[in-house]
Amino acid sequence: MARAGASTVAIVGAGAVGATLAYALLMQGAARRVVLHDVNRAKVEAEALDLAHGIQFMPHAQIIGSDDVEACRDADVVVITAGAKQRPGQTRLDLAASTVGLMRTLVPRLTAVAPDAIFLMVTNPVDIVTQAALAISGLPREQLFGSGTVLDTSRLRYRIAQETGIAASNVHAYVVGEHGDSELVLWSSAMIGAVPLLDWSSTHAPLLDEPSRTAIAEEVVTAAYRIIEGKGATNYAVALAAVGIIQAVLRAENRVLPVSTLLTDYVGISDVCLSVPTVVGGDGAQERLLPPMTPSEQAGLRASAEHIRAVGRELGF
Amino acid sequence: MARAGASTVAIVGAGAVGATLAYALLMQGAARRVVLHDVNRAKVEAEALDLAHGIQFMPHAQIIGSDDVEACRDADVVVITAGAKQRPGQTRLDLAASTVGLMRTLVPRLTAVAPDAIFLMVTNPVDIVTQAALAISGLPREQLFGSGTVLDTSRLRYRIAQETGIAASNVHAYVVGEHGDSELVLWSSAMIGAVPLLDWSSTHAPLLDEPSRTAIAEEVVTAAYRIIEGKGATNYAVALAAVGIIQAVLRAENRVLPVSTLLTDYVGISDVCLSVPTVVGGDGAQERLLPPMTPSEQAGLRASAEHIRAVGRELGF
Amino acid sequence: MARAGASTVAIVGAGAVGATLAYALLMQGAARRVVLHDVNRAKVEAEALDLAHGIQFMPHAQIIGSDDVEACRDADVVVITAGAKQRPGQTRLDLAASTVGLMRTLVPRLTAVAPDAIFLMVTNPVDIVTQAALAISGLPREQLFGSGTVLDTSRLRYRIAQETGIAASNVHAYVVGEHGDSELVLWSSAMIGAVPLLDWSSTHAPLLDEPSRTAIAEEVVTAAYRIIEGKGATNYAVALAAVGIIQAVLRAENRVLPVSTLLTDYVGISDVCLSVPTVVGGDGAQERLLPPMTPSEQAGLRASAEHIRAVGRELGF
Amino acid sequence: MARAGASTVAIVGAGAVGATLAYALLMQGAARRVVLHDVNRAKVEAEALDLAHGIQFMPHAQIIGSDDVEACRDADVVVITAGAKQRPGQTRLDLAASTVGLMRTLVPRLTAVAPDAIFLMVTNPVDIVTQAALAISGLPREQLFGSGTVLDTSRLRYRIAQETGIAASNVHAYVVGEHGDSELVLWSSAMIGAVPLLDWSSTHAPLLDEPSRTAIAEEVVTAAYRIIEGKGATNYAVALAAVGIIQAVLRAENRVLPVSTLLTDYVGISDVCLSVPTVVGGDGAQERLLPPMTPSEQAGLRASAEHIRAVGRELGF
Repeated sequence: MARAGASTVAIVGAGAVGATLAYALLMQGAARRVVLHDVNRAKVEAEALDLAHGIQFMPHAQIIGSDDVEACRDADVVVITAGAKQRPGQTRLDLAASTVGLMRTLVPRLTAVAPDAIFLMVTNPVDIVTQAALAISGLPREQLFGSGTVLDTSRLRYRIAQETGIAASNVHAYVVGEHGDSELVLWSSAMIGAVPLLDWSSTHAPLLDEPSRTAIAEEVVTAAYRIIEGKGATNYAVALAAVGIIQAVLRAENRVLPVSTLLTDYVGISDVCLSVPTVVGGDGAQERLLPPMTPSEQAGLRASAEHIRAVGRELGF
Repeated sequence: MARAGASTVAIVGAGAVGATLAYALLMQGAARRVVLHDVNRAKVEAEALDLAHGIQFMPHAQIIGSDDVEACRDADVVVITAGAKQRPGQTRLDLAASTVGLMRTLVPRLTAVAPDAIFLMVTNPVDIVTQAALAISGLPREQLFGSGTVLDTSRLRYRIAQETGIAASNVHAYVVGEHGDSELVLWSSAMIGAVPLLDWSSTHAPLLDEPSRTAIAEEVVTAAYRIIEGKGATNYAVALAAVGIIQAVLRAENRVLPVSTLLTDYVGISDVCLSVPTVVGGDGAQERLLPPMTPSEQAGLRASAEHIRAVGRELGF
Repeated sequence: MARAGASTVAIVGAGAVGATLAYALLMQGAARRVVLHDVNRAKVEAEALDLAHGIQFMPHAQIIGSDDVEACRDADVVVITAGAKQRPGQTRLDLAASTVGLMRTLVPRLTAVAPDAIFLMVTNPVDIVTQAALAISGLPREQLFGSGTVLDTSRLRYRIAQETGIAASNVHAYVVGEHGDSELVLWSSAMIGAVPLLDWSSTHAPLLDEPSRTAIAEEVVTAAYRIIEGKGATNYAVALAAVGIIQAVLRAENRVLPVSTLLTDYVGISDVCLSVPTVVGGDGAQERLLPPMTPSEQAGLRASAEHIRAVGRELGF
Repeated sequence: MARAGASTVAIVGAGAVGATLAYALLMQGAARRVVLHDVNRAKVEAEALDLAHGIQFMPHAQIIGSDDVEACRDADVVVITAGAKQRPGQTRLDLAASTVGLMRTLVPRLTAVAPDAIFLMVTNPVDIVTQAALAISGLPREQLFGSGTVLDTSRLRYRIAQETGIAASNVHAYVVGEHGDSELVLWSSAMIGAVPLLDWSSTHAPLLDEPSRTAIAEEVVTAAYRIIEGKGATNYAVALAAVGIIQAVLRAENRVLPVSTLLTDYVGISDVCLSVPTVVGGDGAQERLLPPMTPSEQAGLRASAEHIRAVGRELGF
């Protein structure tokens, strides 16, 4: 018999992101049981075996690789990283449509075996996929949400840390909106230690002055493209971002993370999934916090919402 | 709502051992919720507050200090470190009798609020206390057992590591029997890496030759006295030993640890609690392993059992 | 031969704080070698032995207990936790004078054996002791500084976390000034996630409203008294605070921590040691950051400086 | 200025193994500075950027990606994972020859910039590559050695753990010889807890009986093939095995690990690199331990040595 402490995380999709996420969870001892599920049996079993072979060097845990959705039964957290494969000539919109189609099959199977799990969507385009999965599953928005701009925020903090020489853990700044080209940085509420980020250049000129901030924001938005160009995929940082979110749930941390949730009258935005600072704890995505925003930041967030909504409309929901 | 992963460890007794154990559990992120329970309300609240003040520097967890046994409700693991206070002129036997008396009150209260918990006895004389608590509670021996010679074994490995210059993690040797003066080292089955310990001196003379082994065994038995002489108590290593046992339960490790359990025909020993290598996992203390023993080791173990049994008789059970 | 990675931390003073700090460092694997030094040989050897006995359950490291200051040679970090013992009837000022007297003997011996170490003062009254040790040693203020209000800040964040239900890691608030009764909270720059703390009560009334903030600040200042009343000393959280500072040095983190350093024209304050948010990295205490402060916060900080200065004058420097 | 504690690990080769190793090192906080070096600039920079983006979620460290060997200067440990790319139609022997040729260029450049580093060879065929690199570099065998059968041993322990239900940390068994088809398990000295593995089936029949042991050994030898078939490469467990070896060096653990070193009269074997239980610490690969072996195990080890020697001859050394 497993005791209450034996938390289970099920990862759906054994691609680069899913398998790396399993590795990161195991290394951090975040779960006592990690299930990797994929329709490709040879692949999922090989990934699980490679992970299991390292167990001597990690905190004790159980790793299961299976092509049977039944392996995800009673998971505490289900993370979906699976998406449709891009076919030659397929547009991004067509690909998104295929991925949403995949969710129509996948999500009901998962909610059937793990109805009480917290569901974390990582598959891109994550805001669209989250909104679709919410509709398909009928789950409350606390229980199903997307990894959103947690990764983008981590990239932002790394770049500001690099620029200023201050530890990333003391950089308090958020990327919000779509996890994609229309995302934006909330510069006006950003802090370094106890100092407003916008004041930094007054004592450390020209660090973080306006041109430098614009360049950083641009780099954050385009980082994925550069990494994919160089190595074909991104997997390491996104896996760590997901571990951060999962730990917030499993440890009931009530940590503030910019996950993608369905908004209701948030600076006037409703009925669309996007990322704003949100309290994540044992019951999933709870309260959305409202940082002070300049009119231009509010406008940027609304434009990002509109962009996601437009894509959603093109996909027919 | 806390999720399934939110394991709770309740520690009964906020003395040096209990409080240090809470600290070690929190630092290792071993439990999501640590409850410290003691009848001394001012003391237990002060310890819990001091621990809680450091939470920024530890993995997220909840720490509760309370003089109400109700705080232990539904714990996954209950660790008993509380004992009777020694009165001036009181003999060790009288003290043991007082401690057993304390268990008569304490154990039923704890099994009432946490009937499914694994119970780990740390209070000394641990073999006697474990046997008494088993009888009082009526729990199966898998569910209630003592920390036994896990600490003594850790001391032994440290000393062998120090003597040979080999990492303690590669020293595979066990102290068995009573957690006390009659304990013994199972030298004949001990290994360093893949080399039998008894062969070590043939290639590394005079390391670990017979006089050196006798000296090491003597030091292990008397270590507690020397530490108590110098600092008044032992707390750091015993807390880590207890964390090791608790992790074996919470992570369902099935780790081999010399915990104190009720024996039934183990090299002819029955109906007495003492330590032999035992598999500890999610359901508590499982199978006792039977290492090869020389006739002299078997005799030593039986003598140790007889010693514990004699003390038990003097205490009237 | 130890390799470059083999960092050494020497802890001077094997009292509750010093020994607990050694334990916390070892458990976090923060140093490869921990030296505990105290004039009481029986005590320091007993503490080191108790720590060493647990090494099987911690990351590999070496622990040395010695009454010879020579054991601290070539340490990377030296932490001073030793102070004068309070004699019956002795006033706090007399005790401080005795402790400063102790530093006159101790500090030159330590700088002689570890001239390149970063020196962290933990002994109370920490601001006075830091200032005295700076003068005695002639070391630059980057290299010798005090733990200051890092602990108080941790207490503050714990209380705000408890009040709001938000993870302490998302509470960005600092206690500054003296580590003592005249310290103050910089409420005006405090943030929870991306939300100014002073705005919190507008959406979460009455959480963190003015009376609540006053009560929290009061509790933070008096926390040590309550803990000492209940358990006779504080040791767990202060040890973790010190580990946090030491890690910032050993890992070259450039983390923002309110350590106590000698100020020069900081909001008009000069030539006194007190705590403000400071960048701590591989070379010790670097730049002091200047958060926005209200006139009343500035006045509070100046009053705190004046208080420390007055004590210093009474002690004759 | 970085302090002494600031250990640097340089990884040469940013393929799946090298990049995953960087990730594992960073997650475990094993090094303060991780350098990833590869001739493919776009690739190495992308891997480093992806790793750096996750730094918020890992212990503080610096990650550098560079196509300039100069980035490896003064590393404490250099890990070589780079090998020749297999060309269509190329035999395994031709590929090995190309890889050895690559070492002729690579190794002298690395010893020029990091002459005091410990060198860990991971590139396959690891025994041949280690022997070639030793000859090319002229380094002592303590300073340059191969990861050998550490991974195979981890696979063996996982399988035995799985079969018996006992924690892998209590399975003490070694795979020795070539890291490849001629490797063998030292069953006669293997232990589970304190019980000889060969005795296990007498109490737990038919677990670990002769047919079961043969099957396990076979699975260990062929595991890599099955994983490569399923996912195209192996990377997770091999990275953890390398981290284990690197930690043994950086923490001066003196841990017993079956690394590949140049043997001199080891059960009659000389002048060939292969794996036997070896003490790994701050100065690299130290003493080789000599477990008791049956005549058939000795013969197996000699046959494995002969196999490696034959390949070496075909490659002209």
